[in-house]
Amino acid sequence: MTESKKLRGDRVTLAHGGGGKAMRDLICEIFTAAFDPETDEDQARLMSDALTEPGARLAFTTDSFVVTPLEFPGGDIGKLAVCGTVNDLAVGGARALWLSAAFIIEEGFAFDTLRQVVATMVAEAEHAGIRVVAGDTKVVERGSADGLFITTSGIGVIPPGRDLAAVNIRAGDVAIVNGVLGDHGAAILVARGDLALTTAIESDCQSLDTLMEAALAAAPNIRAARDATRGGLASALNEMAEAAGVTVEIEEDRLPLRPEVKGMCEILGLDPLYLANEGTLVLFVPKDEAEAALAAMRATPAGRDAVVIGHTRSKGPIPVVMKTTFGSERIVDMLVGEQLPRIC
Amino acid sequence: MTESKKLRGDRVTLAHGGGGKAMRDLICEIFTAAFDPETDEDQARLMSDALTEPGARLAFTTDSFVVTPLEFPGGDIGKLAVCGTVNDLAVGGARALWLSAAFIIEEGFAFDTLRQVVATMVAEAEHAGIRVVAGDTKVVERGSADGLFITTSGIGVIPPGRDLAAVNIRAGDVAIVNGVLGDHGAAILVARGDLALTTAIESDCQSLDTLMEAALAAAPNIRAARDATRGGLASALNEMAEAAGVTVEIEEDRLPLRPEVKGMCEILGLDPLYLANEGTLVLFVPKDEAEAALAAMRATPAGRDAVVIGHTRSKGPIPVVMKTTFGSERIVDMLVGEQLPRIC
Repeated sequence: MTESKKLRGDRVTLAHGGGGKAMRDLICEIFTAAFDPETDEDQARLMSDALTEPGARLAFTTDSFVVTPLEFPGGDIGKLAVCGTVNDLAVGGARALWLSAAFIIEEGFAFDTLRQVVATMVAEAEHAGIRVVAGDTKVVERGSADGLFITTSGIGVIPPGRDLAAVNIRAGDVAIVNGVLGDHGAAILVARGDLALTTAIESDCQSLDTLMEAALAAAPNIRAARDATRGGLASALNEMAEAAGVTVEIEEDRLPLRPEVKGMCEILGLDPLYLANEGTLVLFVPKDEAEAALAAMRATPAGRDAVVIGHTRSKGPIPVVMKTTFGSERIVDMLVGEQLPRIC
Repeated sequence: MTESKKLRGDRVTLAHGGGGKAMRDLICEIFTAAFDPETDEDQARLMSDALTEPGARLAFTTDSFVVTPLEFPGGDIGKLAVCGTVNDLAVGGARALWLSAAFIIEEGFAFDTLRQVVATMVAEAEHAGIRVVAGDTKVVERGSADGLFITTSGIGVIPPGRDLAAVNIRAGDVAIVNGVLGDHGAAILVARGDLALTTAIESDCQSLDTLMEAALAAAPNIRAARDATRGGLASALNEMAEAAGVTVEIEEDRLPLRPEVKGMCEILGLDPLYLANEGTLVLFVPKDEAEAALAAMRATPAGRDAVVIGHTRSKGPIPVVMKTTFGSERIVDMLVGEQLPRIC
């Protein structure tokens, strides 16, 4: 694949999706030059000892990314596309092994932007210890897509005996998050430039695999984990509470919020519980393992600010309640409607 | 998941991609009601004895589908999204086990159309003996996508000892296709309605897994297989010839073409060698197994019209040549530019 450069011009044309020479040149010079696959076949052929361990399970997940703008403080669509899928695998207790990446590109998209996105994907994949092994390229006419959409799918392996699932959560468990809430949603909001706001808020977009493995090593009986993305912490907690048949009680005082995010939410009338995150881990842990989990999390970069935010009790009429700063109780419902489109 | 119906209205709104209640209702009533996954977790957790067989390899592939129109004679985007990925696995000799499906939906898209697409996906997945086990839903504003894009990824298992790859092709091998060429491209062209043409041509969109297994059972030393999709037969043959370092010689007289497709190409100045297919298998087989492969293929519905179209010889200056009806030789290059955008 080290042929001489053949890609002409500086923008993607419909011919680059046509299945012929132009597509081969685009794939060769922008995608395979960066992802460095082992074969030229359309299909990756993979082996891992982890897969054949008796009792191991394969984890499989997919996500499309349509975020706008493509680049934002703290990341871009490429970093998001890798982290998002790595995190979906990690919260199931799986070790991510392989990723696929499918690109839907609008005619006229700049090669340089595409190269930049691919470079952040490669860097983030290296960081998370996985490989992008399969891909696809489609080009649609100008106006039929908005720049670039990326769909990643991930394969991981869940070691024998590990079973993280929301149904495993019991009354009396402790709820932990790894850090401040809402940074991704706030960063995207500012990056869109619709508001006369300038802040230094960066997206929390990051891979949670190392953090998750550290927590599991210290607290092997972790019941369930979720990354609180679209719909925010509130929606993630509601889904888990409902699946488990418990009530989750969180305390407003304990919720970790950056002052800038808190201030922005107050100005705009947004609720940080519903702001999207892209590197926020929610764990439910048996009470006697909570301290160990916290300590292990705080020892990793992605878990430095880990805190207990509440606990579970036997199922009441409301799945998620919050003790407010003033001592009252507030219902924390799932997100109704949508807070911000194309957040990821 | 058998809750009472909550999905309101008849069209997708931005809220259906927001990560909250509306999204849950959409996923529950349109996707999980049809795909029937085993868990509510974001991630599929899978086991198969085939995976743990010593020497077995995992096959992994992905494709985005952006075809327009969404429905066409012989199929729709849903059927295409399942067949396309099943076929990518099949031509590597893998048995398809699991699929993921990620939907990018334009605001305003009709629920009924989405339900219809999902129904054809379920039917085709059942036909191919695979399950859709993971999914994702994103909604973008009106004008930011064209209706519906679907990305599927597939996991399959390549049995121990099986190694299909273009590099395995040798001089003296026989090239076989399973049936008539160009039906998909022609069907899409007519379905777009830009031409004052009415024909009965249907897309050849079909899963090739059964055909492929039948061929492999009869001819276990098949060197390589490819489904000739975008770029047509010409591009597939060029890719394989270049990877193998041989010249492929095909005979114009032997190319199976429907008279309607041939006529349409003559009127429009198109070359059927570059028309897209979505159920066309190209096999390279050692000479002494060609008859057995042909007979086995013809005994399956997808291979009824299987024919030998040519053979390989030692590498010459041109990767693919065609003996024309008039006895001359013609260079068959890869597709240059694009013949028809958004064909799949």
